[in-house]
Amino acid sequence: MASELILLEMKVSPFAPRVKIALREKGLEFEAREEDLLNKSSLLLEMNPVRKQIPVLIHNGKPICDSFTIVQYIDEVWNHKSPLLPSDPFERARARFWADYIDKKIYPIAKKLWIAPEGESMEAAKKELLESFKTLETELGEQPYFGGKSFGAFDISLITYHCYFHAFERLGNFSMVKECPKLVEWGERCMEKESVSKSLCDPIAIYEEALETRRILGV
Amino acid sequence: MASELILLEMKVSPFAPRVKIALREKGLEFEAREEDLLNKSSLLLEMNPVRKQIPVLIHNGKPICDSFTIVQYIDEVWNHKSPLLPSDPFERARARFWADYIDKKIYPIAKKLWIAPEGESMEAAKKELLESFKTLETELGEQPYFGGKSFGAFDISLITYHCYFHAFERLGNFSMVKECPKLVEWGERCMEKESVSKSLCDPIAIYEEALETRRILGV
Repeated sequence: MASELILLEMKVSPFAPRVKIALREKGLEFEAREEDLLNKSSLLLEMNPVRKQIPVLIHNGKPICDSFTIVQYIDEVWNHKSPLLPSDPFERARARFWADYIDKKIYPIAKKLWIAPEGESMEAAKKELLESFKTLETELGEQPYFGGKSFGAFDISLITYHCYFHAFERLGNFSMVKECPKLVEWGERCMEKESVSKSLCDPIAIYEEALETRRILGV
Repeated sequence: MASELILLEMKVSPFAPRVKIALREKGLEFEAREEDLLNKSSLLLEMNPVRKQIPVLIHNGKPICDSFTIVQYIDEVWNHKSPLLPSDPFERARARFWADYIDKKIYPIAKKLWIAPEGESMEAAKKELLESFKTLETELGEQPYFGGKSFGAFDISLITYHCYFHAFERLGNFSMVKECPKLVEWGERCMEKESVSKSLCDPIAIYEEALETRRILGV
């Protein structure tokens, strides 16, 4: 039986695109349904009653929630091609550690920078974001991917911020190429993959969304 | 070669005991070293330079960090007995979802309740904590364990809060047996396992630590 895969998503989000990349890496067909967070669908509320958040992957009627958990699920169920998690338990633990780091560090700092007024708050958010990016750059080292020689779950967790780089630079008035050249090279390398480039948003649209959020909040 | 296992821990914490339970479920010997968070050891800083947090499991000199990541690592490396994660990918995703829920919900609310002044703040923290416990109780349903028929990683994530129940009750002035009878029964069932009872702290000592924290903060 062919699998029925429905993805409840929001295009402008660092989370749902991770699932799309993983599905595309595995060569799977899926139906994506855009959610409106101000008016959540009854399907979303039914499928993720505890968190009520996207992304949710509905696989033959059964929901799997949380982006990194979904990526691991996809890797475990469709293990015939493009392994996303390393086979070695130590390397797998490393991928999980950094996926968690990205969620606990990058997302909250990015949110701060998004709405920080010009001046001290913006400078503090920018400093914190660049420190985290530099920590990640050190971890990347001279490898082509965070997963080592091949693209994997650790890369997937971070690459969905690639389309936010432009907004970060414009809002924080800095240059990613100057500050984190290896991270930019890594991002370009990942973007050569169709699974990635097809799943990420337009950086200009994201920057415009940031400006709109700031306008609404009166920043 | 016998594995050398060193656990950098703090006894009074919901995190490190998870690792001890997993190691004991697998019948593994380990050396536990207590850390002082106000004066972290050079070993901790070397082994977890990014987060600088316990627990860290050092396996033959290599560090694995973050309690749930360590539990998964232990389960993957020593897969000959006592499986901790379910073999079915959907059930494994469910265990990961709830482990994440416990870390993102229970821990922050418990911290709030810990230091909330009597009155409105305490009532709000207590309400939020009980709501989360009831959500978990619904998920448990009529099963003996969160893992179903057998004790597993989802149980491990939550059981390390069992020794905090007494402090929660005393601080919030409520009865766990009245509010969440099934959760209490589940906790007692888990405590019959030596792996669990040997790894958890004395509830009275935890309550005293809460009172001491409140005294220092002037609550």
